[in-house]
Amino acid sequence: MSARAGIVVTGTEVLTGRVLDRNGGWLSERLRELGIDHAHTVVVGDRPEDMRAALEWLASEGMYLVVTSGGPGPTEDDMTAEVVAGFAGRAVVLDEELEGRIAKILERLTKRWPNLDMDAIRAGNRKQAMIAEGATILEPVGTAPGLVVPPAEGREGQPTVVILPGPPRELQGMWPAALETESFRAATGGRTEYRQVMLRMFGIPESEIAETLRIARGDGVDLDAMEITTCLRRGEVELVTRFEPSVEATYDAFERVVRERHADTLFSDDGTTVDEQVARMLTESDRTIATAESCTGGLIAGRLTELAGSSSYVLGGLVVYSNEAKSALAGVDAALIERVGAVSTEVAEALAAGARERLGADVGVGITGIAGPGGGTEDKPVGTVCFSVTDGTRTMTRRQHLPGSRAEVRDRSTTLAMHMIRRVLLGESD
Amino acid sequence: MSARAGIVVTGTEVLTGRVLDRNGGWLSERLRELGIDHAHTVVVGDRPEDMRAALEWLASEGMYLVVTSGGPGPTEDDMTAEVVAGFAGRAVVLDEELEGRIAKILERLTKRWPNLDMDAIRAGNRKQAMIAEGATILEPVGTAPGLVVPPAEGREGQPTVVILPGPPRELQGMWPAALETESFRAATGGRTEYRQVMLRMFGIPESEIAETLRIARGDGVDLDAMEITTCLRRGEVELVTRFEPSVEATYDAFERVVRERHADTLFSDDGTTVDEQVARMLTESDRTIATAESCTGGLIAGRLTELAGSSSYVLGGLVVYSNEAKSALAGVDAALIERVGAVSTEVAEALAAGARERLGADVGVGITGIAGPGGGTEDKPVGTVCFSVTDGTRTMTRRQHLPGSRAEVRDRSTTLAMHMIRRVLLGESD
Repeated sequence: MSARAGIVVTGTEVLTGRVLDRNGGWLSERLRELGIDHAHTVVVGDRPEDMRAALEWLASEGMYLVVTSGGPGPTEDDMTAEVVAGFAGRAVVLDEELEGRIAKILERLTKRWPNLDMDAIRAGNRKQAMIAEGATILEPVGTAPGLVVPPAEGREGQPTVVILPGPPRELQGMWPAALETESFRAATGGRTEYRQVMLRMFGIPESEIAETLRIARGDGVDLDAMEITTCLRRGEVELVTRFEPSVEATYDAFERVVRERHADTLFSDDGTTVDEQVARMLTESDRTIATAESCTGGLIAGRLTELAGSSSYVLGGLVVYSNEAKSALAGVDAALIERVGAVSTEVAEALAAGARERLGADVGVGITGIAGPGGGTEDKPVGTVCFSVTDGTRTMTRRQHLPGSRAEVRDRSTTLAMHMIRRVLLGESD
Repeated sequence: MSARAGIVVTGTEVLTGRVLDRNGGWLSERLRELGIDHAHTVVVGDRPEDMRAALEWLASEGMYLVVTSGGPGPTEDDMTAEVVAGFAGRAVVLDEELEGRIAKILERLTKRWPNLDMDAIRAGNRKQAMIAEGATILEPVGTAPGLVVPPAEGREGQPTVVILPGPPRELQGMWPAALETESFRAATGGRTEYRQVMLRMFGIPESEIAETLRIARGDGVDLDAMEITTCLRRGEVELVTRFEPSVEATYDAFERVVRERHADTLFSDDGTTVDEQVARMLTESDRTIATAESCTGGLIAGRLTELAGSSSYVLGGLVVYSNEAKSALAGVDAALIERVGAVSTEVAEALAAGARERLGADVGVGITGIAGPGGGTEDKPVGTVCFSVTDGTRTMTRRQHLPGSRAEVRDRSTTLAMHMIRRVLLGESD
């Protein structure tokens, strides 16, 4: 029987969507990697009774472990430590040594703020050093400490609670220390190891995967022995399968069916993203890239420079929102724009060629389109986007009609462009 | 007594963080606006028993209404309708008229995909038309319908469940129809209206707000009569207060304390973002803007073009990652780069001036920095970013050291630049 865990994400700003939660999913993946079954993440606001109710529920569902994110900060609405202490049947005490260590961190950090209210700092500091008696302290990665809080005597059977800070960088940095505590190990003994494979496809609707599942089932593949999820993300379909090592042959049979049906759209079987593949191909072949974009307004350049090390292959880009900029910066013939319109495959090709030449790059990318909500016509409705990628010899050009809002059209355009770049780098062309 | 509601977000891809949930928060805000108390969002994967457990818990907590997002799609792992029907004590039946309406939508949509497996489409179609008997259908915005499912006879007291699709655009488009159903109204009668005010500040740490709360309390402001949350988002501090109209005077007293202590950093009291303020100021003063950015790689241009209508004031931008591009495109003197280094306030100023001149814009923005993880030196550690904004007369230049990962440094840089643009547009300068 495998260990079970729940996650509680705290913060009214997360509950109400002002901040998107990046911790619940990250923790879930880490728990799965450890072979710990994770079924529920509860998001609660800054009301102590709501957090307590979530803890009680997860306990009643038989969890061995609960991980919380957010709350151990300096402000008054950060109440996690107190609520968890109450739940575990432990008193809240001030740890003076911890208070001293946090004070030292704050001293260093607050140098860059002029005129700070040091009373505020010290009060917040003291609050962060209030811990559940008998808990194991996880040293701060930022300024807030974490805690591993096992149930007090007489409450055996209740879950151990790991309290982690809200900022993803701090939470992720603190996780390894949490795993090494004795309480964590005691709570999560007896685990099954799982294997997980992710297949990524681009250029098919999700319903095609549903049909592939039906076909595999028809071929006698025991899909119920595995946990299969599909998900449409930024225009790509992700197919993730988790299984125990004992059913590896079943998985292999399933993957064969997928590969057969989706050979043309399957682009990743090792977890790599198209961004990572493009980065690797550019680096390995020692080629450089430059962009000229209109409707995406810098987002494809932004995406190409997302990965560390991108300065070795991204030379730069042109954001040519106005027609004048298209001509002046990217060298697009004003007469061409006049004749075929700014949103056209011809202008996309001229932008790709212009980016390549003006920046002296090996590969040029051109994008022009109508992201909306205004600006659409009958011929070129909102969502019409033209793309071109060229390495001087090979050129690939596309006109697409993308669904969704302005933000979705722009984001989807960057994914489509990344896949076209990938294919040109692989030597394909129109 | 106010109506209470819970939210269940479904999908293993959300539970495990491959997709960030954008629905729970959106729904939470909508419920609050209606005066419905929302305390818990439960995220569950694609296991029916996990979803059922979440529904049972929310029922046991006394919810009148549960809203679910995700699941009514065509793939096998979409099991929401079936689980909710079981929970409500209703049979699952095929609605043939709905099947016909979905078929028509699919016919139109699938035209753009060549060589589709039409059997797959039809099977998915039929699955989406399986509904809980007696439920109210919410017509598809995309291809998936929604449902409002009241408890069956004999289960009165259980919550009514509103099933909505996962894609945010479809969920948001369907929400108004859900509100108008009789079952929704019946489940959410007797509500208290709330007021909510958001104050946004830039340039102070969150701990300062904690101190402001203490001072307000010391002044006799009854903070416990209101729900106050603070949150640090993209470098800005958001202070959100919700209160019943009867305690408006208490809120006013609180806001006075905040305004007094944070006059210099408070930039929004009407919910507007700095992006919206910059857009409004550029539009109203009929001025144009252009960018030249290095470490942010197009993200500030991308952010400036995020809002609809930005084509009237964004002329374009230069992404000048390499030193050669800085000189060739933005006209930065190569000797200057040689002398003071690419990451310097001098080069930031030259970039701002270059962007302005090359694109013929009224306002120019220059950014150059070290986003990391590599490239830092003792003098200029990772996170060092130089900014300059100029309108030709007024210039504002800053050198900052920003904490965090590569992605955080880049994102934080765009926020800092937006605030500098705002201040220059307001007529400030160094």
